[in-house]
Amino acid sequence: MSLKNRQWVFLRNPEGVLTPDIFEWREDRAPKVSGKNILVRNRVLSLDPANRMWMRGRTYRQQIMPGDVMHGFTISEVVQSGDPDFKPGDIVETMGGWQDYALLSSSELSKRDPKIPLEQLIGIYGITGLTAYFGLKDIGAVKAGDTVVISAAAGAVGSAAGQIARNLGARAVGIAGGAEKCAWLIDQLGFDEAVDYRADNFREALKAACPDGIDVYFDNVGGQVLDAALRLMNQNGRIVCCGAVSTYDIEGKPFVSPLLPGVLVAKRLRMEGFIVLDHMQNRGEAEAQLKTWIDAGTLTPVMDLESGLERAPETLIRLLAGGNRGKVAVTLD
Amino acid sequence: MSLKNRQWVFLRNPEGVLTPDIFEWREDRAPKVSGKNILVRNRVLSLDPANRMWMRGRTYRQQIMPGDVMHGFTISEVVQSGDPDFKPGDIVETMGGWQDYALLSSSELSKRDPKIPLEQLIGIYGITGLTAYFGLKDIGAVKAGDTVVISAAAGAVGSAAGQIARNLGARAVGIAGGAEKCAWLIDQLGFDEAVDYRADNFREALKAACPDGIDVYFDNVGGQVLDAALRLMNQNGRIVCCGAVSTYDIEGKPFVSPLLPGVLVAKRLRMEGFIVLDHMQNRGEAEAQLKTWIDAGTLTPVMDLESGLERAPETLIRLLAGGNRGKVAVTLD
Repeated sequence: MSLKNRQWVFLRNPEGVLTPDIFEWREDRAPKVSGKNILVRNRVLSLDPANRMWMRGRTYRQQIMPGDVMHGFTISEVVQSGDPDFKPGDIVETMGGWQDYALLSSSELSKRDPKIPLEQLIGIYGITGLTAYFGLKDIGAVKAGDTVVISAAAGAVGSAAGQIARNLGARAVGIAGGAEKCAWLIDQLGFDEAVDYRADNFREALKAACPDGIDVYFDNVGGQVLDAALRLMNQNGRIVCCGAVSTYDIEGKPFVSPLLPGVLVAKRLRMEGFIVLDHMQNRGEAEAQLKTWIDAGTLTPVMDLESGLERAPETLIRLLAGGNRGKVAVTLD
Repeated sequence: MSLKNRQWVFLRNPEGVLTPDIFEWREDRAPKVSGKNILVRNRVLSLDPANRMWMRGRTYRQQIMPGDVMHGFTISEVVQSGDPDFKPGDIVETMGGWQDYALLSSSELSKRDPKIPLEQLIGIYGITGLTAYFGLKDIGAVKAGDTVVISAAAGAVGSAAGQIARNLGARAVGIAGGAEKCAWLIDQLGFDEAVDYRADNFREALKAACPDGIDVYFDNVGGQVLDAALRLMNQNGRIVCCGAVSTYDIEGKPFVSPLLPGVLVAKRLRMEGFIVLDHMQNRGEAEAQLKTWIDAGTLTPVMDLESGLERAPETLIRLLAGGNRGKVAVTLD
């Protein structure tokens, strides 16, 4: 029996804003297991702002090359295995890509608890939740009483980060696009304040929302919003550089704050980038802490789920345009 | 008896490049001691790139205001004292300013060892040497085998930093303006390599000088040189932000690297600003270590001394134009 494998192939690096025509739909046959390989069926596909960066060049991982099946994190199920450590039905976290089936080796798979709902495995217990947790704890060194500002606060990492900051005893101020998202951050997710970066008075509003300045800025966007935060940072503040989504999906030159690097000296700021994959040795402890908060009702995982592999391109485009709330993922049939 | 007090008064914030006419020479009488005040005579006046920043606005200290005697660090001698803790002849480090005499309180003075030559007190054992030391150790976390790149390497802090990096077992690569300065860094100060930032092939030359990439970049300048270093940083590298002299004495907008902040994420870089004054609790230990290296002949303090208070303005202008080698200071008669 040969399984049909639906795929989205990456055709070329887009010149400016991502458009659907850089992906091509293909129907192939699933590869066959030989040797110690493992065939997995992708159950949930994670869509992340970083996907767009992977198209632009080498980052912390290899670039996506034309002709590749589009890369993406997945929660997948083992279908057939040549490795005795994995058996059919096992649930794994991997880079399964934008397709139904992927043939992988055991070193590319990480076994997950099958009792946890798949959308929590891809979201709060996956890259997303761990990024928020390690960013605030290890890089931001957030402590009780700090004012923590989070950009892209309605996004996957941001919506988790704001809630985690509050669980750590900090004051959480979210930055998001539009009044509706801002109201949602306060009313539904418990942020102390939320500021609309598209509003004319954004900079004044951010200042008003941070009367004691900013101790930790969790930066997902870079650009103008980073500039606004830099002006309000307190002495010895920390800037957690998690991403720069404002620079990923644009034509032309990104805006960079003219305060850099002088303001880092004057205010003794630390600005530090990180990749969650470097912190995985502490994953167990982080997941246990996240579970405590989820069970206590003080951390609500927020999912923005679409159904069907065919919707992956439009959903990534919507994500890059800021049209999501919480963790964006596509469930596969 | 009333002492003549020659002074340079700061008239106004220069619009662009610093010019001598923003200072005015004044001859006044020295102030008289009353209460617990202490009258000091300034013996050596430190000139620092940061002096230019102090004119531009509030930084880590108050702005210099029109009408002020120009601010500056000094090594001074107590002349008359209303405080029993200080007696005439004591040598102190203070902010004596651009003048012969200053009336200060004990909290503004820090006693220094009178057996150490004055030019070492203002240089290697002063702000300059300590900035290089704490920047490399506490912020840069330099370890043996690291490649350490230092901008403004022929300057006060840079010339010390390169030598200290080598004493810590690192490879020291200096960046300076002009082939002559570069040759001097290698031949006289023992830098492993030196690269001329004014040369057409600067970026290629820097890359060639750092075949294993950069682990620690000690940034005194910001701008284009920071951008060039960012491109060569190794994963988990550290950028010690000590100053941004390329942005201090210019008209118009400074150049800021378009790689910020994305490159910090991709390479997990830490970029951290510091002010040496925050690290003074470890001063004793630092001075002891510096003395060991000086005594062993592996650290040579480099002084660029001018004589006479009247030369302070032209000397600061020369410093800001990069026309110095080592620590710039003016001795007072």
